[in-house]
Amino acid sequence: MKPTPSTLALVPFVSVDDMMKIVNTIGPARMIAEIATYIEADFLRWEQFDKTPRVASHSREGVIELMPTSDGETYGFKYVNGHPANMARGFQTVTAFGVLANVANGYPVLLSEMTILTALRTAATSVVAAKYLAPKGAKTMAMIGNGAQCEFQALGFREVLGIETVRLYDIDPAATAKAAKNLEGHGLTVVPCKTAEDAVAGAQIITTCTADKQYATILTDNMVGAGVHLNAIGGDCPGKTELHRDILLRSDIFVEYPPQTRIEGEIQQLDDDHAVTELWQVIAGKTEGRRDARQITLFDSVGFATEDFSALRYIRDQLERTGHFVELDMLADPDDTRDLFGMVQRAG
Amino acid sequence: MKPTPSTLALVPFVSVDDMMKIVNTIGPARMIAEIATYIEADFLRWEQFDKTPRVASHSREGVIELMPTSDGETYGFKYVNGHPANMARGFQTVTAFGVLANVANGYPVLLSEMTILTALRTAATSVVAAKYLAPKGAKTMAMIGNGAQCEFQALGFREVLGIETVRLYDIDPAATAKAAKNLEGHGLTVVPCKTAEDAVAGAQIITTCTADKQYATILTDNMVGAGVHLNAIGGDCPGKTELHRDILLRSDIFVEYPPQTRIEGEIQQLDDDHAVTELWQVIAGKTEGRRDARQITLFDSVGFATEDFSALRYIRDQLERTGHFVELDMLADPDDTRDLFGMVQRAG
Repeated sequence: MKPTPSTLALVPFVSVDDMMKIVNTIGPARMIAEIATYIEADFLRWEQFDKTPRVASHSREGVIELMPTSDGETYGFKYVNGHPANMARGFQTVTAFGVLANVANGYPVLLSEMTILTALRTAATSVVAAKYLAPKGAKTMAMIGNGAQCEFQALGFREVLGIETVRLYDIDPAATAKAAKNLEGHGLTVVPCKTAEDAVAGAQIITTCTADKQYATILTDNMVGAGVHLNAIGGDCPGKTELHRDILLRSDIFVEYPPQTRIEGEIQQLDDDHAVTELWQVIAGKTEGRRDARQITLFDSVGFATEDFSALRYIRDQLERTGHFVELDMLADPDDTRDLFGMVQRAG
Repeated sequence: MKPTPSTLALVPFVSVDDMMKIVNTIGPARMIAEIATYIEADFLRWEQFDKTPRVASHSREGVIELMPTSDGETYGFKYVNGHPANMARGFQTVTAFGVLANVANGYPVLLSEMTILTALRTAATSVVAAKYLAPKGAKTMAMIGNGAQCEFQALGFREVLGIETVRLYDIDPAATAKAAKNLEGHGLTVVPCKTAEDAVAGAQIITTCTADKQYATILTDNMVGAGVHLNAIGGDCPGKTELHRDILLRSDIFVEYPPQTRIEGEIQQLDDDHAVTELWQVIAGKTEGRRDARQITLFDSVGFATEDFSALRYIRDQLERTGHFVELDMLADPDDTRDLFGMVQRAG
């Protein structure tokens, strides 16, 4: 008889504590940059992926979603919730975990916390899009909304795009103060601002990342000048948008996966046939990204399953590098695969 | 600062080892009977559930599926694979794990192995259906296919339906021998048979549970006499059926969730509008189950998300009773929910 549990039964598990150790071993900015290379590589082979809009279970309080995808060799999915009222009750608005599995035999090969990892991959995705869409030589980014995603965005844009200054604004000054303090010593000039108008002044990149579950107008039309790149993250579920519709009409809009973005993104405000460009086509050189210095580009980011897949793939590749995981006895593995009952009975 | 990780970050995890201990503490037959009461209770409130066909990712080798559902208070999903070629390579055909979560805040409240639990819930579901559909006073069941599900079926039918004799047949005599040996001392008369025809002789209930991924004909028309209840489990994915079409045409067919069964069940052999009855309507007294002693009833079972939900709900209720679980640090829980970055940074 094999020892119980056999190695086939074990799935590497990256806990929150493990993930924090991985981030601190590699460094958050470098890790975002490295995840960005995985995301970019997977966007390049976009057509290999099974793609489907996320499977959402909506309730009065929020949403629970499953986001599956597969490249034919590896399958992945993320469980993620979005509950805007959580913050006031002492819970995270978004928590997540994810799994990778071997398509050939269906066995899971990784279980990982993804609350932290989602923050990293969201920043990494923004960075990948901005690489292709932001104006050349951009040095200043406005960050509207200074919640859990804020610092990851700032560090990612510093590391990969060379952003030197971030201008912070949040309706709650405490959030801005929190972000400013966390960003000390990370090589950025941080400018806390008292209004959104002040924050966007002189910024070549404007990132919006607020959490209200409602049609909000974080940016109005007159706040967005020519040549700006908009990185809109917070409009990510039905009924939740951040930008005034007029901004969308002046922008060239880039999205991850149109069937999902039309339901969840800023473009839910537009007609169903409003022209948008798929980001992967820009990355693959099939279509142009930014054409000129006066163009307003908008990355209407809602987060897509392939990005989580890329992030999980990255984490799996760090297991040996960092050693930060434990093995879970998650899969039954009887000696004779037909003898599940016998295995249970003999354990008694 | 809270201690790290705080209790909010912890999710109870039932490993394979824990699940075996739970089964052996409660006893497999009693546990199947108890799960059956949860499944029946949830079928009774069928209309409260969010229902959707499972989300399947098919490959040449098999399928990986996510099966989500929610009753408005609790959300659950199962990850399950089906890889017919696995057995020959020393892997389980089916492995699974599942999660329950709190709809109000989206936080997972249970992670559990479900390879063993699925075997238990499948047997429990068969038993619930047979309670309403099998002929009164049935004492003999034929079990065609003596793989991983076989013993669980036999014990469930003994415990709840009062079955006294099981007649076993498998194309591989070693599988039959395995099942017969495992069933020793469990209060059943076990009759190994050399042919399927022999196995069904005198049986009032015929359970088919084979694993080939193909259109197979485990039962032909002449093998099924009047008054029999057919419990067809193995036809559970597109292209995989076990019964000759003529049997279906002579039977009254009961299913879990028609949109899923028409794709995956025996009835994929029939026209899309062939009349079937939903099992929950029988349980809820909205329609008749078995009408007379000569009727052939067929439970075309493919396994539905609510059954996994019921089984997970049952396991959650056993955590305190048995103590067999560990807590996983799976959810990030910063002091200030907006300060995810600060939490990571301070851990460094």
